[in-house]
Amino acid sequence: MPELRYNIISREWVVIATERAKRPKDFIRAKKEEKVLPEYKENCPFCPGNEKMTPAETFRLGDEKAWRVRSVYNLYGALSSQEKLERKNLGITISMSGFGNHEVIIEHPRHNTLIALMSDQEVQDIIRTYQQRYRVIQKISGIEAIIIFKNHGPGAGTSLEHPHSQLIATPIVPPQIRSRIERAIDYFDLTGKCIFCQTLQEELKAGVRIVLETDKFVSFLPYAGAAPFLMWIFPKRHSPSFSEINEEETRDLARNLKSTLQKLYYGLDNPDFNYTIRSIPVREKGTEYFHWYISIIPRLSQPAGFELGSGMFINTALPEEGAEFLRQVKGA
Amino acid sequence: MPELRYNIISREWVVIATERAKRPKDFIRAKKEEKVLPEYKENCPFCPGNEKMTPAETFRLGDEKAWRVRSVYNLYGALSSQEKLERKNLGITISMSGFGNHEVIIEHPRHNTLIALMSDQEVQDIIRTYQQRYRVIQKISGIEAIIIFKNHGPGAGTSLEHPHSQLIATPIVPPQIRSRIERAIDYFDLTGKCIFCQTLQEELKAGVRIVLETDKFVSFLPYAGAAPFLMWIFPKRHSPSFSEINEEETRDLARNLKSTLQKLYYGLDNPDFNYTIRSIPVREKGTEYFHWYISIIPRLSQPAGFELGSGMFINTALPEEGAEFLRQVKGA
Repeated sequence: MPELRYNIISREWVVIATERAKRPKDFIRAKKEEKVLPEYKENCPFCPGNEKMTPAETFRLGDEKAWRVRSVYNLYGALSSQEKLERKNLGITISMSGFGNHEVIIEHPRHNTLIALMSDQEVQDIIRTYQQRYRVIQKISGIEAIIIFKNHGPGAGTSLEHPHSQLIATPIVPPQIRSRIERAIDYFDLTGKCIFCQTLQEELKAGVRIVLETDKFVSFLPYAGAAPFLMWIFPKRHSPSFSEINEEETRDLARNLKSTLQKLYYGLDNPDFNYTIRSIPVREKGTEYFHWYISIIPRLSQPAGFELGSGMFINTALPEEGAEFLRQVKGA
Repeated sequence: MPELRYNIISREWVVIATERAKRPKDFIRAKKEEKVLPEYKENCPFCPGNEKMTPAETFRLGDEKAWRVRSVYNLYGALSSQEKLERKNLGITISMSGFGNHEVIIEHPRHNTLIALMSDQEVQDIIRTYQQRYRVIQKISGIEAIIIFKNHGPGAGTSLEHPHSQLIATPIVPPQIRSRIERAIDYFDLTGKCIFCQTLQEELKAGVRIVLETDKFVSFLPYAGAAPFLMWIFPKRHSPSFSEINEEETRDLARNLKSTLQKLYYGLDNPDFNYTIRSIPVREKGTEYFHWYISIIPRLSQPAGFELGSGMFINTALPEEGAEFLRQVKGA
């Protein structure tokens, strides 16, 4: 029986289309010729020795010649802090200058690795770099929100092979984020509870959608996930901003993120995916109602006219089955 | 200079990324081997003679043996009116039974045609079928919204070659539609005007984003379009529901839709695209603030982590340049 499920956090209705449902194994893409990547590529701007091919470095872990992680400005930045912040409002045409920030985080010197295959220490370095950039950029006057994200594979919007993430800082609170905050406030006003803490507590109790629980983090498939194998990683400690994670959490997040991505890598044969860190807008701190988290979105289905025309989603995989499948996937 | 633009109708902020901007011609996909489709395909359930391969017919234009357009239930319907409408609300898990409707509109007997290549009369038949299904289905008790849409090409979410559209009727007002209505009400309360009528009037005055004006309809690239060559077709007459178009409008819409799709077909070499008809929820009629329209979304770019994490979009094509390019494309 098909079923509509409501995602109380994202405010989305999702059709769980059991009539066209697929088994978890059906999502493994047709085996294409796997391209074997080299450890180093002469013309890759992110490979060691080619540091001059990137725009200015903003941060580095390790030595200049033996770095572990680097962040640099994006060569074709969508937004730039060199722009003056200006607004125009002329009737139906409301615009702003492209003020903001856009950086690339080069996750590893090696061209042919992946978070799923790195050591815990290496993943910690990436998370520390995310946090350092977040903390510095949130101080820039005029920045309202910071979105850290990763695109893995062409189906997720990148053609660059070298492992990297991105950070875009915007001069406005994106409406989608504003809408989720409003929803969280409604819930808090109604119940006195954080909607994320409550969801985590109920998910842990139900157990059926949990993928991995570590000391400080839990990864799970949300009840009304908009896409097959869509996962959330929630911190157990209530905290509105990613910038506030402590040392112990950094170590545990590295473990959880790596293991969760390993389950995708081994279970679904290295699918294309995006992840994004959802954090409170930078000027709003210490709230009781918002809770930062990570969304991982494997790109195994294509939103079509119905999704574009309604904002609803059709998910052809039952979250409970997806979670059970991923729980059983073993790492390297 | 990059610029942020606000779409007052969709409430989206869009980054017009001029730093990474492409010229209109750059969006023509790399010439792949064009598959030449046959007029008839023995195993295609939508081809004439194979009527028994589809689920039950719901409507037909023409004779049983010589039909022009047919609508049938979707073989793997996402929703079904055979389901009983039931709601469950158990804390964080809110769900409904899969009550609704899902039909396929087979646009033409010929396997290898497209709206861009049909006669005006044939396109009118499709629009008449849309309207007939809309009018019948909106009377079903429990149906709240009807989304008519088309997926053209694999990048737009379909692998079926035979020209077809779909209709999904939902037992709830999708949150995205509710949000646009709220926005339209705000604007109406503030100005006493329909936000769509006002936008159309200002777009016609500015002229720079108009693609095609016919007697009753105008197609244009919205000021803050979320994707390259995203177009809207607005009816000139204020009317909240697609179900209310009259005979003259049906004829003119066929002309406008066909010519607009022709411009995509010839100008950008038959790109994958979706379109969707945005209409007011079926129980809300005769309002002053909402105005139905069609969105056409060519699938020339891939939303990635930033889009998923913020609800904002990066558009690498300037709408004004896209409109100028399409205005100059001549039909067959």
